[in-house]
Amino acid sequence: MTDLVFITGAKGFLGRHCARYFAGTGRIAAGLGHGEWPEEERQRWGVGAWHSGPVMVETLERLADRTGLPKTIIHCAGSGSVGFSYDHPHEDFLRTVGTAVDVLEFVRRHGPDIRVAYPSSAAVYGTATSLPIAEDAPLAPVSPYGKHKLMAEECCRMFGKEWGVPVAVIRFFSLYGEELSKQLLWDACRKAGRGEFSFFGSGAEERDWLHVGDAARLLLLAVEHASPDVPVVNGGTGQGTSINEVLTMLGDAWSPGSAPQFTGQARVGDPDRLVADISRLREWGFTPRISLAQGIREYVRWFQAQARHD
Amino acid sequence: MTDLVFITGAKGFLGRHCARYFAGTGRIAAGLGHGEWPEEERQRWGVGAWHSGPVMVETLERLADRTGLPKTIIHCAGSGSVGFSYDHPHEDFLRTVGTAVDVLEFVRRHGPDIRVAYPSSAAVYGTATSLPIAEDAPLAPVSPYGKHKLMAEECCRMFGKEWGVPVAVIRFFSLYGEELSKQLLWDACRKAGRGEFSFFGSGAEERDWLHVGDAARLLLLAVEHASPDVPVVNGGTGQGTSINEVLTMLGDAWSPGSAPQFTGQARVGDPDRLVADISRLREWGFTPRISLAQGIREYVRWFQAQARHD
Repeated sequence: MTDLVFITGAKGFLGRHCARYFAGTGRIAAGLGHGEWPEEERQRWGVGAWHSGPVMVETLERLADRTGLPKTIIHCAGSGSVGFSYDHPHEDFLRTVGTAVDVLEFVRRHGPDIRVAYPSSAAVYGTATSLPIAEDAPLAPVSPYGKHKLMAEECCRMFGKEWGVPVAVIRFFSLYGEELSKQLLWDACRKAGRGEFSFFGSGAEERDWLHVGDAARLLLLAVEHASPDVPVVNGGTGQGTSINEVLTMLGDAWSPGSAPQFTGQARVGDPDRLVADISRLREWGFTPRISLAQGIREYVRWFQAQARHD
Repeated sequence: MTDLVFITGAKGFLGRHCARYFAGTGRIAAGLGHGEWPEEERQRWGVGAWHSGPVMVETLERLADRTGLPKTIIHCAGSGSVGFSYDHPHEDFLRTVGTAVDVLEFVRRHGPDIRVAYPSSAAVYGTATSLPIAEDAPLAPVSPYGKHKLMAEECCRMFGKEWGVPVAVIRFFSLYGEELSKQLLWDACRKAGRGEFSFFGSGAEERDWLHVGDAARLLLLAVEHASPDVPVVNGGTGQGTSINEVLTMLGDAWSPGSAPQFTGQARVGDPDRLVADISRLREWGFTPRISLAQGIREYVRWFQAQARHD
């Protein structure tokens, strides 16, 4: 049996970085998700077979008809936006909870020895009551996005307990890196490109930033830990960094000396600080390798190279 | 606007009793669910329009194209069996959680003034730690069926909070009545018909039995209480009755003097006692009307009439 990995949502931000990282370790990555993906670009990301379609038991089976059954599934497909979940709750539910249940059912039917790693989100904690946030903190998601992520986790735990499906859940905090064409860094680069550098909010909110390259490495480690007990681990660095600090680094990387301006009011509903307790991650022997300063420099370089191609 | 009620799963046990009861109050009932339903039989149950198909936003819209938008939806569709949920978890998820989200999304899109009543289950409590069970007891479902019911409830609360969809949730304990062609009373009647009357288990387990006619009446009351705060109420009588007592009543109704025999061992995993705290139900002004003895007599009469037609 080759070391075959199915990556759902392989064309997405996290999915393609996983594919590249996994292929770099000698594994064979096959992808499933929406849209056509030209072979040349796909191969550049290390994705061998690609099945275009929704993530369902049937499409996973069709992919397996071509490649054989995988040893591992990294379920990266799913909604990736809090805002989207407020505007399209039904679609968000299908993308996050619906696809997770299909992946789990596929494993239940075709061999409980297929291991699953599920990228969940710190959104399942909601507004944290104490920091840093450990995995056994209360689960009180606020947004539909966070609630759906929690339901998907519950399904993982149920398929582990009842049918022995081996899963590991990683609750990622703030992921960033090349290919992420939305959110703070993207918006900041676009502003910088227009010569603007002022932002809503106070800039004081702290987030725990993990580079997507480290996230891919953590997902591979999670596969080793996958079990029917469905262990959960926080995916973060344990360090909070304010929006102001992040944008200052980004400004420096863009053109030295440009400092961000803030409108001075915190956005209503955003938690002030979200920082991971990484004790369990340390027990797993994981240490992030890409510093935030380095990751932001690489992001800016990637953005500027993109812009030149446009 | 006519007082139009959509009943999903109207062809099922609870659904058809709701339709009959609602039609009896002068409302117009339209149904949606799986399978063809001959008009004569359907009309006998008080169901005017019937759309055969899965419960989805699109099929609800197709039904509304014919009838207009409803004032009320009673979402009776969904899985109705703990055993089924262990054998077919994926299908159970789709039937219970998937259909609930579609109903809620239909209301979100077409007018938050459509009220929803959702029949949930005491299975969301799991093995009760103290009796009787109040609505604020810990929610710790054990079976996939119970876990899916809880997820469907969470979706109701989310659509209430975020989009103002008015819902009321009723957690039914043990429903019974004519047309229920499975579970304890059905199996007991079949045994009695064969001249057997011995049963697995100890007969000591207590359940809280509510007649489906009372359940239908409670669902109509729930519609009045539906709000974006999504009130939850137990659907029970507050009285626990042991399996032994139930089967003794059934034996008497079948042919006086026949007493049940038990193998003497409790079934592993079954809670000993499940009895509803009905304080909140009393605040709503609801009192069950059909006694268990009467309900069982009617059930036996119905079963025997059915058997004569076979």
